[in-house]
Amino acid sequence: MIFQKEISLSPFSKGFHIITDIISEIIQSSGIETGTAQIFILHTSASLTINENTDPTVLLDLESHFNKFVPENQPYYQHNYEGPDDMPAHIKSSLLGTSVHFPITYGRPNLGTWQGIYLGEHRNDGGSRKLIITINGK
Amino acid sequence: MIFQKEISLSPFSKGFHIITDIISEIIQSSGIETGTAQIFILHTSASLTINENTDPTVLLDLESHFNKFVPENQPYYQHNYEGPDDMPAHIKSSLLGTSVHFPITYGRPNLGTWQGIYLGEHRNDGGSRKLIITINGK
Amino acid sequence: MIFQKEISLSPFSKGFHIITDIISEIIQSSGIETGTAQIFILHTSASLTINENTDPTVLLDLESHFNKFVPENQPYYQHNYEGPDDMPAHIKSSLLGTSVHFPITYGRPNLGTWQGIYLGEHRNDGGSRKLIITINGK
Repeated sequence: MIFQKEISLSPFSKGFHIITDIISEIIQSSGIETGTAQIFILHTSASLTINENTDPTVLLDLESHFNKFVPENQPYYQHNYEGPDDMPAHIKSSLLGTSVHFPITYGRPNLGTWQGIYLGEHRNDGGSRKLIITINGK
Repeated sequence: MIFQKEISLSPFSKGFHIITDIISEIIQSSGIETGTAQIFILHTSASLTINENTDPTVLLDLESHFNKFVPENQPYYQHNYEGPDDMPAHIKSSLLGTSVHFPITYGRPNLGTWQGIYLGEHRNDGGSRKLIITINGK
Repeated sequence: MIFQKEISLSPFSKGFHIITDIISEIIQSSGIETGTAQIFILHTSASLTINENTDPTVLLDLESHFNKFVPENQPYYQHNYEGPDDMPAHIKSSLLGTSVHFPITYGRPNLGTWQGIYLGEHRNDGGSRKLIITINGK
């Protein structure tokens, strides 16, 4: 069985945000009991990753790290048309990735106790972001 | 349905290169309408990622970033047998990844308007690179 | 066909470790000849990646790189409850990823000649780690 659905998210502020519940509800509606989920973001200045789901300081520290190690205003940036957050957003997107993948077991995301799904919004004003959820399974 | 095909690419210079058209043509030949694509590179000194498909300065700035933040000639590198680009290429491969994944919808890669598939060539003389395209779908 | 199995690994020391043989044996036991494998780690302070399978200095240099570019004791870290290796472990997990994916061909992992599957243990005392192997194929 294949299940596929596109969704649009409300705009997020720059930083990391937990979207596990939104994804989990769609997966449970698919009727697939065992398989793999692919969550794909249709953008090049936002990203998806999996990390700690409880302490909000993890999201803040992750944002601090990426702002330091993918800095704005580097002298070698040529792609700055949309402002200083433009090229760093593209780099963060490739570092973190445009998709996350996890197993489905008993009709639910089979994540670790402490794992949640993060959306990384890397623009100051990224607007609504679109995701496609595709599940292969039975 | 499962579709799988191995391809060899002509050698690329060090840096990032857009290979969307090559991948898209193979996917459209598979006959699979809905599903997921896995593009896998059989090497440890090159990578695959998804990023902006229009402005060539994004590819150049991405290369500049990785050359600065994964520098050559670090005092702690022990693996330098093949030259100063050897160990940085392995690190870039793990940072960016050896595979990209995206949905297939209506028989085509379902990428965002601005998304393209990049091959990252991290060696000065990497030669031909092999990919395996596998599609799960119906 | 879908195959899914959860396994627990013996504790690893901080650093990178090759686990190809463990994964390969499970994949060969699945009976699936052609498809895709998803290896998923149920933790937020360890990671999975694919890199060079022969020279042990690659594993050591990768560890040195990540210790330098994801440093401990940054002034902006707020999430330090479990020690100085806590937040860097979460960042490394997102940089490297919680899953690896590769094709299955003739019933085996279709990896490049020099590719192996790495587990990145990013805690000083991470304990046993759990993985879920899911294969879609035929």
